[in-house]
Amino acid sequence: MGNPLGSFLDPASISVVGPSPKGNIGTAILENLLDMKSRGRLRSEVHAVNPMYESCLGIPCEADLPVSELLIVAVPPSLSVDYLRKAASIGYAAAIVVSGGFEEIGGPSLKGLLPELGGMRVLGPNTLGVVDPYTGVFAIFLPRRKNGAENIPEPRAGNVALVAQSGGLSASLYDYLNSSGPGIRALVSVGNAVDVDITESVEYFADDPRTAVILLYVERASEGRALLNAMKRARDNGKRVVVLMGGTTSSGRRATSSHTASILSSARVSGEAFRQAGAYVANDLEDALDAAKVASMIQGDPGDSVAVLTNSGGAGVLATDALSSLGFNLPDLSSDPRLSSLRASGILSQLSSVANPVDVTGSASDREFIAAYGALMDAPVGGIVLIPTHYPPGMTENLPRTLASLSKKPTVVVEVGDSELSRRTRSLYDSLGLPSYPSPERASRALHVARWFARNLGTWTANRSAHGGLHIRGGLWPDLVDALSIAGFDIPEWSWLESPDDWPPSNYPAVLKVYAQSLSHKTEAGAVIVGIRDVHEMDEAMRRLAPIAKAASGRIYAQRMVHGVEMRVGLVRDHDFGCVVDVGLGGVLTEILGDHSTRVAPVTHEEALSMISELRLKPLLEGYRGAPRADTGRLSSAISRFSDVACSEGVAELEVNPLIVDGPKLYAVDARAVLST
Amino acid sequence: MGNPLGSFLDPASISVVGPSPKGNIGTAILENLLDMKSRGRLRSEVHAVNPMYESCLGIPCEADLPVSELLIVAVPPSLSVDYLRKAASIGYAAAIVVSGGFEEIGGPSLKGLLPELGGMRVLGPNTLGVVDPYTGVFAIFLPRRKNGAENIPEPRAGNVALVAQSGGLSASLYDYLNSSGPGIRALVSVGNAVDVDITESVEYFADDPRTAVILLYVERASEGRALLNAMKRARDNGKRVVVLMGGTTSSGRRATSSHTASILSSARVSGEAFRQAGAYVANDLEDALDAAKVASMIQGDPGDSVAVLTNSGGAGVLATDALSSLGFNLPDLSSDPRLSSLRASGILSQLSSVANPVDVTGSASDREFIAAYGALMDAPVGGIVLIPTHYPPGMTENLPRTLASLSKKPTVVVEVGDSELSRRTRSLYDSLGLPSYPSPERASRALHVARWFARNLGTWTANRSAHGGLHIRGGLWPDLVDALSIAGFDIPEWSWLESPDDWPPSNYPAVLKVYAQSLSHKTEAGAVIVGIRDVHEMDEAMRRLAPIAKAASGRIYAQRMVHGVEMRVGLVRDHDFGCVVDVGLGGVLTEILGDHSTRVAPVTHEEALSMISELRLKPLLEGYRGAPRADTGRLSSAISRFSDVACSEGVAELEVNPLIVDGPKLYAVDARAVLST
Repeated sequence: MGNPLGSFLDPASISVVGPSPKGNIGTAILENLLDMKSRGRLRSEVHAVNPMYESCLGIPCEADLPVSELLIVAVPPSLSVDYLRKAASIGYAAAIVVSGGFEEIGGPSLKGLLPELGGMRVLGPNTLGVVDPYTGVFAIFLPRRKNGAENIPEPRAGNVALVAQSGGLSASLYDYLNSSGPGIRALVSVGNAVDVDITESVEYFADDPRTAVILLYVERASEGRALLNAMKRARDNGKRVVVLMGGTTSSGRRATSSHTASILSSARVSGEAFRQAGAYVANDLEDALDAAKVASMIQGDPGDSVAVLTNSGGAGVLATDALSSLGFNLPDLSSDPRLSSLRASGILSQLSSVANPVDVTGSASDREFIAAYGALMDAPVGGIVLIPTHYPPGMTENLPRTLASLSKKPTVVVEVGDSELSRRTRSLYDSLGLPSYPSPERASRALHVARWFARNLGTWTANRSAHGGLHIRGGLWPDLVDALSIAGFDIPEWSWLESPDDWPPSNYPAVLKVYAQSLSHKTEAGAVIVGIRDVHEMDEAMRRLAPIAKAASGRIYAQRMVHGVEMRVGLVRDHDFGCVVDVGLGGVLTEILGDHSTRVAPVTHEEALSMISELRLKPLLEGYRGAPRADTGRLSSAISRFSDVACSEGVAELEVNPLIVDGPKLYAVDARAVLST
Repeated sequence: MGNPLGSFLDPASISVVGPSPKGNIGTAILENLLDMKSRGRLRSEVHAVNPMYESCLGIPCEADLPVSELLIVAVPPSLSVDYLRKAASIGYAAAIVVSGGFEEIGGPSLKGLLPELGGMRVLGPNTLGVVDPYTGVFAIFLPRRKNGAENIPEPRAGNVALVAQSGGLSASLYDYLNSSGPGIRALVSVGNAVDVDITESVEYFADDPRTAVILLYVERASEGRALLNAMKRARDNGKRVVVLMGGTTSSGRRATSSHTASILSSARVSGEAFRQAGAYVANDLEDALDAAKVASMIQGDPGDSVAVLTNSGGAGVLATDALSSLGFNLPDLSSDPRLSSLRASGILSQLSSVANPVDVTGSASDREFIAAYGALMDAPVGGIVLIPTHYPPGMTENLPRTLASLSKKPTVVVEVGDSELSRRTRSLYDSLGLPSYPSPERASRALHVARWFARNLGTWTANRSAHGGLHIRGGLWPDLVDALSIAGFDIPEWSWLESPDDWPPSNYPAVLKVYAQSLSHKTEAGAVIVGIRDVHEMDEAMRRLAPIAKAASGRIYAQRMVHGVEMRVGLVRDHDFGCVVDVGLGGVLTEILGDHSTRVAPVTHEEALSMISELRLKPLLEGYRGAPRADTGRLSSAISRFSDVACSEGVAELEVNPLIVDGPKLYAVDARAVLST
């Protein structure tokens, strides 16, 4: 069985169950379909089904379900179940279940019904529906017009596939994309996703030639790794994936649970996982839309050096601030030959600046913009933030077309304001392939997203799994040393100690510790003594720990004391994504800061390097204030190997803490494991 | 002389110099004024002045400058100077100089001209102009319409005074505020501010009864403390001040310099200073507009507990995430009697949730929203994010009016989308006093701004100045100990040392240091030995430091070694704001993080407390992991006193680093000063 979305987006025929002449959800869907049909946009046959009425919206209302490809049931749950069974029995390929109220609130079970449906695929329940502007399937229950005004725009063909886990938000995102955005490839509202889910939807658009961008609203990725595989496949096929996540806070997770009976296991893990698969994780709703727009319109990499071209000094300053904060640099272009000759020849006024921002001033007209933009095509910048504020008398509506014809570099347009001409100017630039934004900061961020996509193809490998194989004898450090050594860490010299004389003089200074199953938090229990400098101090330390060891039925061991940068490396099982690795800098301050980095395991060497580079306290590893520089290559190898071998069936959690990094050495000084039960 | 803005915003008569029948900047201004006049909105008399023509736009073009109150000169610099002189000589009160190109690029000097103008006040040069919807003064050079479309909206009377240092951005902000925002009290574009500046403008609106909000775009606050005084006066008069800063990055500062020949001395200092004066410092352009809107419409404090009421599950989740991140909590309302009875009685469907978000689901109509919003008026929440997505069939345009009539709590509305009805719905809520926003995140932030204004009245005191008086004998620690002690810090036991026996045994462990003017960085020079435990080690340490001291012509001193949380407190002279205090946590990690807090000095005890509370590493002072809890009261007193006495004429810079905080003790362990030359 191939991917099921075809029967939803391009069915030969559609049956809508439930419309009534009095108007209801089913009627709204039927009306949208018939409207598309009447204008020749929809090619599917459309049937209305309702035994209560003769006709609806001018077509016959059939009493029995006719043979057809796609079923849309807009009736209450118990009746929906009957129609689903019937449809499956007469060969329907797909069904959209609009209503909510199934097992999630104690109603009839859809999940339980699936095995009886003989392969008919179900979208929903609790879905807004699907839209495909190419086939004319406009199967959502929102009226096109209300009170003489446009309620929701009709679909406009574009290359952004919108897949969402919330019906309400589907509508809002759809509205933006079709009203003032780049249009859509399709909308798939998966609803509670009892069958067709977000992963299958991404798989479909990953292979779809009309799709350039997949915009996802995700509250839960229950089969996390399958979703990552699908996202990566999309990226490998040249698509861009933008993810808007809902439920990133604990209150937000509670909110998702109340509306779709599902929770995101960890927003932090999910976000990192999506980035591993090459997806851009948006900061908020507008960022998601802005990112989808730029991803659908700009393919090239703007590079790190960019220019701002403006007739509004203040907007140019704000763009410059935003670009700088995003890591772009604005090279001084004062000595660029083409730009400086524009000033010398008087084409740009003496009040202008070509330093970057190139500020042609508020008195500039089309001519100055065209000359300066043309000159920037040869200047040492890769991308351009263009701010051709439309207000001054000399700025005309011919300008956008000319600029677009000159454009050879990734360019985003800022057109601030909400007047008629502001809005029209934005639309005009959009239609010419130069994505426009209503603020300097949003445009700057869009350019950043273009750069991000050009550079982040995703490091995820499809069907990633770990070798595992780590054999662990217990949960405490002495039980783990062999395994940690195999995983690639160094073990400081150590031994069980019966007498102070057993400890070699060359291994001072030393640390003395108690090993006991009941003492998993040794330091808090006073079962660790550090800084032991000689045999006398060792003797004293042993006397102090002996009663603690005895009381806990434990043993005493000594370790050579090592120094360096304190880190920690841990592995946990995530509900959605399985084995996950976390790397952080250790110690008190880091704990306060929560300075750590997460990836779905096993992580590659490259991913481990990027985990380290994300740590805010990374300078400590780079030889800060004369300390030895850490061997981050060796550290990354160890993290990678650890993430591979430690993802074993038997290991639920494993943390090396502290991991003391001293130049090339990676001392696993302490560790704890939780074994799977 | 009173505040000069009156003659700009409400002149008895206006002379526009420079219009021509062929059209130019002056013509555009004249056209805007005459249009307002023809519709009875402008009460001022209007004159056109141009000796070259007989008439312009249907009124006579006068050859000589008539007697009038406000001059608007839209001619090149050298000619502008002539008209300014003439106007001053015949009694004009005020002049707007539209053109740029004066001394900033080597043209004629306006600054130099001012003393000759006999008190006539000048706005500009390089200004967009002024607008006052109440008097009808629409004196900007942008055409109202172009190509049959609205180029820029006409002024709509509101309570937001817009004052900006960029003409181009003035236009954009004006556009938003009048197109889809709350309207304006006035626009004052100060341009290069050779005379009337941002401070005088703020002073004017601080006392203006029509003003509720002052929205500022600031690139430079050259008389920083005067501006803070004006802002605080506005706050004390019940106005809200929103600041959008340009030039917050070094590239951005270069950009401001290229367009207004001025730079912001320090964005960090400016931002903190504005907050001290009770201003909200916006994150970006849209945040500034969103904040101005909510500040103009909501006076109350929404509190920390809020509710989300939605018919879009996903939008509710995004709002919840945003609110949580802003420090709001969403109490579970499941057991609220009114809400739960709505569900029990069937007014809300079984698919709804009243947990918070209160999700009435996509099938809800006006009735459910009205019932749930009414119930929230009695629920234990102070503010509400209302998400009445307009798309579903049962949602009508009657709903906003009913909700507004029920509203007794600060409420912001989310209406996502860009379709006709999305935009109309937002306008409708705005007109009813419920500010609306196009995304859940922006609405949540607006509620945060409402709370912020209700709680932050500003701690700045007008005409703040320091007592000073600290007498400093030199730049190194031993020179500073008396002063530091007076400032409120503890000095660890210390003495000059000639022999190890001079050091009292009770003061071990100790630190030995070299004092020498040439050794201002002692540690790097190897001139510090720490951890000296007894007289033998002291002897050895003295032998090691003796040659260093000798070579540097210095002396050796010992200090008792103290332990605790490492901090630093510094004082610097800021170009715009004068004496400024900076407090940070010391040590290596903090340096990497840049974890510090800044205020304009002298800081009050309350301000010092808030400085400490802003530090990310503040938990270290709160007894983290069993360390002694710092006496933050005593610490704040010392910072406050330090900031008062150390702001002396003779002190250019002074830093205590490290300041070791050990419970109640505040040891100034080392310090350096730079004296004013």
